[in-house]
Amino acid sequence: MADSLAELQDALDTFVEERNWAQFHTPKNLAMGVAIEAAEIMEHFLWCSGDESYSLPDDKRAEVANEIGDVLMYLLGLGRALDVDIIAAAREKLVINREKYPIEKAKGRATKYVDLD
Amino acid sequence: MADSLAELQDALDTFVEERNWAQFHTPKNLAMGVAIEAAEIMEHFLWCSGDESYSLPDDKRAEVANEIGDVLMYLLGLGRALDVDIIAAAREKLVINREKYPIEKAKGRATKYVDLD
Amino acid sequence: MADSLAELQDALDTFVEERNWAQFHTPKNLAMGVAIEAAEIMEHFLWCSGDESYSLPDDKRAEVANEIGDVLMYLLGLGRALDVDIIAAAREKLVINREKYPIEKAKGRATKYVDLD
Amino acid sequence: MADSLAELQDALDTFVEERNWAQFHTPKNLAMGVAIEAAEIMEHFLWCSGDESYSLPDDKRAEVANEIGDVLMYLLGLGRALDVDIIAAAREKLVINREKYPIEKAKGRATKYVDLD
Repeated sequence: MADSLAELQDALDTFVEERNWAQFHTPKNLAMGVAIEAAEIMEHFLWCSGDESYSLPDDKRAEVANEIGDVLMYLLGLGRALDVDIIAAAREKLVINREKYPIEKAKGRATKYVDLD
Repeated sequence: MADSLAELQDALDTFVEERNWAQFHTPKNLAMGVAIEAAEIMEHFLWCSGDESYSLPDDKRAEVANEIGDVLMYLLGLGRALDVDIIAAAREKLVINREKYPIEKAKGRATKYVDLD
Repeated sequence: MADSLAELQDALDTFVEERNWAQFHTPKNLAMGVAIEAAEIMEHFLWCSGDESYSLPDDKRAEVANEIGDVLMYLLGLGRALDVDIIAAAREKLVINREKYPIEKAKGRATKYVDLD
Repeated sequence: MADSLAELQDALDTFVEERNWAQFHTPKNLAMGVAIEAAEIMEHFLWCSGDESYSLPDDKRAEVANEIGDVLMYLLGLGRALDVDIIAAAREKLVINREKYPIEKAKGRATKYVDLD
């Protein structure tokens, strides 16, 4: 993770340290933070159709970008607290998913994908 | 985002294309995916205290890492679908947070932080 | 709440007492429980369209019913822990919503509804 | 469900019909609504400890009651859309839970309870 994500991580660490907030940032609370911000992303898509969800008005899109930023920050914080490299974790999960959903079986089938967990 | 996260993004794009799954990956559905996987992270921390949440058993920690990977993959997919650079989004939100929670006022105060949105 | 919901509440109280689980059922944890089970409902609808979501296969529908039951149980537990009557809470919120979304303005407009919070 | 919850259901039906909103209230969207409002409950408990979560300030408690009301309304709407009696669903899930967590094994053990799904 020796790149822009690592820089973001450092900026976040400083932000938290300066405010003495590490005491509140337990893995349990950070996991809640990820879920809360994820729901705030979702709120912008509640009443639109799948097709409509591609074309948010500019102000909504900016708000969604903010919430995406929040999720990533909490996720990085959680990774830090648990000593989990979030990119490595995603890479490893992708390997699992490739095996779980072989191309020939999964191609174009949402029903197959539904069982993803 | 010219680094390991971009590589992950490319690997994800290939994974989705090979399975012809882009049709299901609307921003609306990807936002749901982020929230669902975020809840799966949280499930591992439901009954423990904040302190206990630092010391997960190894098998639980590996499962949490998997769920973290899932959240990151859906988040990247959502960023791709909306043309939002997720790292830039987090950097910009951090700038907002620095102004919203000035050090002298926020230091050590969870009550202040509670109002974060 | 002097009816079937109250009976369910009593059955839940007994279930929790018999297992000595009240110690884990803080409002914080019960709120997490509601959110986790809500996400499990959602998981069944991730890849289907709005129209398709009406016609779940029987086994999926039974699983969704189970998750709905879980959400209601955690919600009742949370209401109990905070001394909030969940039906009265919904009635009062409905009064607020009636004022917030007057019929003449809100009729048939999801865009209006989007701002519901 | 022939009681106060049924009355609430009727009031909700009228509210939705008067605004012609049934078109937006697919099971998929209502499931998202439950999850979004569940996260809004959770937000009030993010930075407090389990013990602190019992003693919310009055204004926060009123806000939590509102969010609880929102969750119940979406849950009822979802039950209606899928023809699921939410109280019966909870009762049936409770029967399952009694078998899954026998008193003698589960008593006082969160670790056991952690495996609840």
